[in-house]
Amino acid sequence: MTPLDLTFQAIADPTRRAMVEHLARGPASVSEPAAPLDMMLSAVVQHLAVLETSGLVRSHKVGRVRTCRIEPVALQGAERWIAERRAVWDRRLDRLGEFLAEAGDTSAKSRRRR
Amino acid sequence: MTPLDLTFQAIADPTRRAMVEHLARGPASVSEPAAPLDMMLSAVVQHLAVLETSGLVRSHKVGRVRTCRIEPVALQGAERWIAERRAVWDRRLDRLGEFLAEAGDTSAKSRRRR
Repeated sequence: MTPLDLTFQAIADPTRRAMVEHLARGPASVSEPAAPLDMMLSAVVQHLAVLETSGLVRSHKVGRVRTCRIEPVALQGAERWIAERRAVWDRRLDRLGEFLAEAGDTSAKSRRRR
Repeated sequence: MTPLDLTFQAIADPTRRAMVEHLARGPASVSEPAAPLDMMLSAVVQHLAVLETSGLVRSHKVGRVRTCRIEPVALQGAERWIAERRAVWDRRLDRLGEFLAEAGDTSAKSRRRR
């Protein structure tokens, strides 16, 4: 699995996206990002493990409290991949637009010549 | 599964990302986007089914040829979700920066007063 596979896989789940949304607002303890989702702690721990494997979330333990924080750099690769696809697509549309404009121009000229 | 789940799930696979990359350059027949990947046609069809379910790719058949094209609108939702997380995170860092600048200002003033 490549880093991009892991990132997209991690955010393909609505619960994990909700946890990332919570952590984007600031670091939190393990139970906190899951509190509004009313989940079993075991499920939270499993989702956090997926997020940590993907590199989207880091956690560290001080005493008995484990604090999680988002690692926004991991999202950049995913954002870049999507933006690049869009750029390729946009360039394609631009070329198509230019072609149609030129074609329109040529046919207008040929009409005027008639 | 929500549209976002389906989109992220679809692009969490390197073969499907390669197919999207190919189709971003222009429509192609079913076998074409998979040709450089050296895959069995059955695997291609399966991956295309996932991409079509997610709405990222549309296909239509004329005679015996099925042509696929990308639907870039489907990528927009995914791009927006990531960009929003980054925006929340950036605002958080800005506030932290302002707080630190103010704290530095206050401590500089108190040093000058001494």
